[in-house]
Amino acid sequence: MHKEYEGYLIDLDGTMYNGNEKIEEAADFIDRLRDADKPFLFLTNNSTANPQTVTNKLQSVSDVKAYPEEVFTSTEATITYLHKMNAKRIYVIGEAGLLEGLQAEDFVLTDHEVDAVVVGLDSQVDYSQLEKATLLIQGGAAFIGTNPDTNLPTERGLVPGNGALIAFLEASTGQKATVIGKPEAIIMEAALAKIGLKKEDVLMVGDNYSTDIQAGIRNGVDTLLVLTGFTRKEDVENLPTPATHVMDTLEQWKV
Amino acid sequence: MHKEYEGYLIDLDGTMYNGNEKIEEAADFIDRLRDADKPFLFLTNNSTANPQTVTNKLQSVSDVKAYPEEVFTSTEATITYLHKMNAKRIYVIGEAGLLEGLQAEDFVLTDHEVDAVVVGLDSQVDYSQLEKATLLIQGGAAFIGTNPDTNLPTERGLVPGNGALIAFLEASTGQKATVIGKPEAIIMEAALAKIGLKKEDVLMVGDNYSTDIQAGIRNGVDTLLVLTGFTRKEDVENLPTPATHVMDTLEQWKV
Repeated sequence: MHKEYEGYLIDLDGTMYNGNEKIEEAADFIDRLRDADKPFLFLTNNSTANPQTVTNKLQSVSDVKAYPEEVFTSTEATITYLHKMNAKRIYVIGEAGLLEGLQAEDFVLTDHEVDAVVVGLDSQVDYSQLEKATLLIQGGAAFIGTNPDTNLPTERGLVPGNGALIAFLEASTGQKATVIGKPEAIIMEAALAKIGLKKEDVLMVGDNYSTDIQAGIRNGVDTLLVLTGFTRKEDVENLPTPATHVMDTLEQWKV
Repeated sequence: MHKEYEGYLIDLDGTMYNGNEKIEEAADFIDRLRDADKPFLFLTNNSTANPQTVTNKLQSVSDVKAYPEEVFTSTEATITYLHKMNAKRIYVIGEAGLLEGLQAEDFVLTDHEVDAVVVGLDSQVDYSQLEKATLLIQGGAAFIGTNPDTNLPTERGLVPGNGALIAFLEASTGQKATVIGKPEAIIMEAALAKIGLKKEDVLMVGDNYSTDIQAGIRNGVDTLLVLTGFTRKEDVENLPTPATHVMDTLEQWKV
């Protein structure tokens, strides 16, 4: 028997679905959480999709019924952080999820006299945007990256992720970004605040050791590593700090 | 009295001119080298301009008369390196100087089945090019960067240089680039081969400690740090390894 957790933070890709492939055990796992009245949040580093888009994907790929308010993306965590630092004027690199998320709040999206440069993945980014970001950060704007993922699995292969954009700007500015997403503390603290539970009462569930499980380890949250995605069974015995729990699939987990 | 050098490797920006500003002592220095029959090469990390463009700039900004065959850019050094590794099919990111340089040789510029990805500064680069480069390097192509400069001084400020593009691709591929330009060995060895002198008989002249002077220090070539450009007089006493010679201007140097 494992400790009983009061709430769950649940990764998406590799945990609830694999790209556009269904993970069979996902829908039943979520049903069991609902039956047991356990609150949960889907926690994703992806800043490019908004919560509604995420719920549509959960439904269409893995038959998981979810509500937008159950989705917490790095965009939401970034917005929380920007409010906390009292930033108003933002230069943003990013796609619809991040742009719409910022526009829905009262931020001024501009490229002059900005308080912060926010960098999320933009698969159409070009040099002129990266130059603007560089000059604004050199000029004193805060340098914020939504998530550190260096790659994104696609049907074309492991294409560059937002971590590559951050690496570009860290080189061109000589400054380190404040990174919001997993495994960093900022998204974890924002998610715990939203779910309204203490870190010792929550379980972080995910397939990726270096983002999901490290997010738990670094922030005092117990972890369940599920072997349906990125981290493979043969890697488990060599992990520097073990996950609290390891399971082949979510079917084995007793809520 | 200093040692008499048989030949000179001479940096451009900060040494022969400052951006579009004349350096007064440059033309006389080059005249004195010609009068003394001392061979020299202008050695630049810039891959975006071809040798003819460089000589035009030397003439128009600082009244320095030079010939294209006296200019050795990171493009020329990259071509030498590509021939040595027997590469034929190249995917290239870069501007006119690099593209034309490669096209003038018998390389096939393509984006499939490539032997090497060559990355030079391209101020119009976009995500799709960086994605192609990422996938090709992951697929086994050699990863070559023309020069490591993280910034470029312009009238707009310190804009991103090729070192930032390399940092992006190092993050997205998990691989280190083979870098050609100063301070690396590859460009120094290629320049010594072209000038036909031994490293102990040559002086590297430049204004930038971390590129020009480090290029000499790391490769056994004596150095003259001239304080007309990037490295300032007050930095000199704190340099980790001193330059062989330091002068305020080239006027003070006896050829």
